[in-house]
Amino acid sequence: MPMWDRFLRACWGQPVDTTPVWFMRQAGRYMPEYRALRAKHSMLELCRTPELAVEVTLQPVRAFEVDAAILFADILLPLEPMGAPFDFAAGEGPVIHNPVRTAEDVHALRLIEPEESLGYVMQAIGVLRRELEGRTPLIGFAGAPFTLASYLVEGGKSTSFLETKRLMYNAPELWGELMGKLAEVVRRFLRAQIAAGAQAVQLFDSWIGALSPSDYVTYVQPHVHHILRDLAETGVPVIHFGTGTATLLELQRDAGGTVMGIDWRVPLEQAVQRLPGIPLQGNLDPTMLMAPRPLLETAISQVLRGGQGAPGHVFNVGHGILQQTDPKQVALAIETVHRLGVRGS
Amino acid sequence: MPMWDRFLRACWGQPVDTTPVWFMRQAGRYMPEYRALRAKHSMLELCRTPELAVEVTLQPVRAFEVDAAILFADILLPLEPMGAPFDFAAGEGPVIHNPVRTAEDVHALRLIEPEESLGYVMQAIGVLRRELEGRTPLIGFAGAPFTLASYLVEGGKSTSFLETKRLMYNAPELWGELMGKLAEVVRRFLRAQIAAGAQAVQLFDSWIGALSPSDYVTYVQPHVHHILRDLAETGVPVIHFGTGTATLLELQRDAGGTVMGIDWRVPLEQAVQRLPGIPLQGNLDPTMLMAPRPLLETAISQVLRGGQGAPGHVFNVGHGILQQTDPKQVALAIETVHRLGVRGS
Repeated sequence: MPMWDRFLRACWGQPVDTTPVWFMRQAGRYMPEYRALRAKHSMLELCRTPELAVEVTLQPVRAFEVDAAILFADILLPLEPMGAPFDFAAGEGPVIHNPVRTAEDVHALRLIEPEESLGYVMQAIGVLRRELEGRTPLIGFAGAPFTLASYLVEGGKSTSFLETKRLMYNAPELWGELMGKLAEVVRRFLRAQIAAGAQAVQLFDSWIGALSPSDYVTYVQPHVHHILRDLAETGVPVIHFGTGTATLLELQRDAGGTVMGIDWRVPLEQAVQRLPGIPLQGNLDPTMLMAPRPLLETAISQVLRGGQGAPGHVFNVGHGILQQTDPKQVALAIETVHRLGVRGS
Repeated sequence: MPMWDRFLRACWGQPVDTTPVWFMRQAGRYMPEYRALRAKHSMLELCRTPELAVEVTLQPVRAFEVDAAILFADILLPLEPMGAPFDFAAGEGPVIHNPVRTAEDVHALRLIEPEESLGYVMQAIGVLRRELEGRTPLIGFAGAPFTLASYLVEGGKSTSFLETKRLMYNAPELWGELMGKLAEVVRRFLRAQIAAGAQAVQLFDSWIGALSPSDYVTYVQPHVHHILRDLAETGVPVIHFGTGTATLLELQRDAGGTVMGIDWRVPLEQAVQRLPGIPLQGNLDPTMLMAPRPLLETAISQVLRGGQGAPGHVFNVGHGILQQTDPKQVALAIETVHRLGVRGS
């Protein structure tokens, strides 16, 4: 009998029958089932309608032997009830209707009660737990304060993070207020997801790699710590993830989390050395899913070898699956991880 | 008497009277003089008309106490004579008219003679050397093969580098042919710039940070080495630069270069430890030029302190100056580097 909870066990560094695997953005555009639903509903409708969010969450669980389901949602969902509505422009990612730039903008952001204003997320989690009980663990998630702040301040996705850093450098108190509000909302939101039944949560600090280590310590780390210190008391594993974090890993670990998520730029062997005693998640380059079978298998075995020194290893891509990915390659990758995966802890 | 050649001296790890400083993209949109010229000429006209390229190159030399001039040009210039014309779409960066995707596309790329097809660059260098003689050293530059290949294959700027990596993983021989051609063209182009009078050159591997160390070694390093091994014989210092390179620095150094360019994510103290005996260039976060004076000065002194352990340190930003930058802040930063800079080597 395969272990249904090998993902949770690996998060805690406990023995497993093989390496568990799930993929960031495993429910998404690369799946025909998903595209069929998206043809009828907007992205936000999918997120805000519990039955639809449940359906999308389950699509990859039905299609593949993934070892965890991750709630279908978007990291920006808390922004609307906080007072910053947004939408997804076709092919261009999120657009915040009124970017947050002034003291008035920051003061006006509300500290929401997620059980009320994001109740649909907790409803979906409740349904999913019943659907998946004893078969597949469910992961909840939220965006981390810097990553959320960058969308709020820039008004969308950015490459230079100019306006975000301008606020950070020129109005540090206001920045602190903004980050404090976001951190408290994220803390409450993840607490609410756990209370609703999420068996693990992942904090996505996707764009944190834009910062120097010194700026991370000054402007971000205390706010991430505010969230992760509190979540450590829940008894649920917390995955702390970012990209471009090669010079931040130790600082992120110090901010908290049970498992550190590693992108593909850091060889897993090096992450093991730098983060002794910490379970790791990662870190196949998502474009490697486009590679021919022999190369994909070599790359997977390289990642598996790299993860062996960690007390636990959850196989994943180093950033979300790209929409151009062939689902057959996803199935092949999962089968390969389970076949070549590592027994023991 | 201030040393006119402190930039060249620092590149070689020789004694200097203070830390030299220049800025990537020091000639550009943030300067009103530049915007005035751009209002009358396209970007490509500025690059391809020696008098205009000379004028733009000299603008920051006249406006600021920079310790080096860098030729005004674009890393994509060699692509047109190679057979891949491009243009700059308003506000969107470069667009390659016919992206390179097939074997035929790669075979068709020409190994150019830069003295002929890019003669305007060498003409501008000749004029600039006469203008700047004994006052300010002149830097030439080129894009590195991976960065050029990514534009060629994607058709423009990318975030995922999906098509580039797809070619790399699925057609390694074709990839090798593409990179081989680009490397040979870049080698010839930098040789020609040096022959025309460039007193230093910088190789921009701006997007190399998209690769894992293992992929860098397999698919890129030999081609960069082809260029840098040859340039080592010219007696001119070569700056080897990339961004997001925290896990690649040693591999880049092994590929070659006199000076390693470090982005702002790697504390310079750490770069000194990892690259013993190598002069370093960097690495202020370019958005820090938007910071209020006390914070900017603190950040500059932190970078200067970090660079002290290197045999030579050239102060620079960790990536190009942003167009929203206030020229007064650039002047302030340069003055601060010279005031707080380090004597000796």
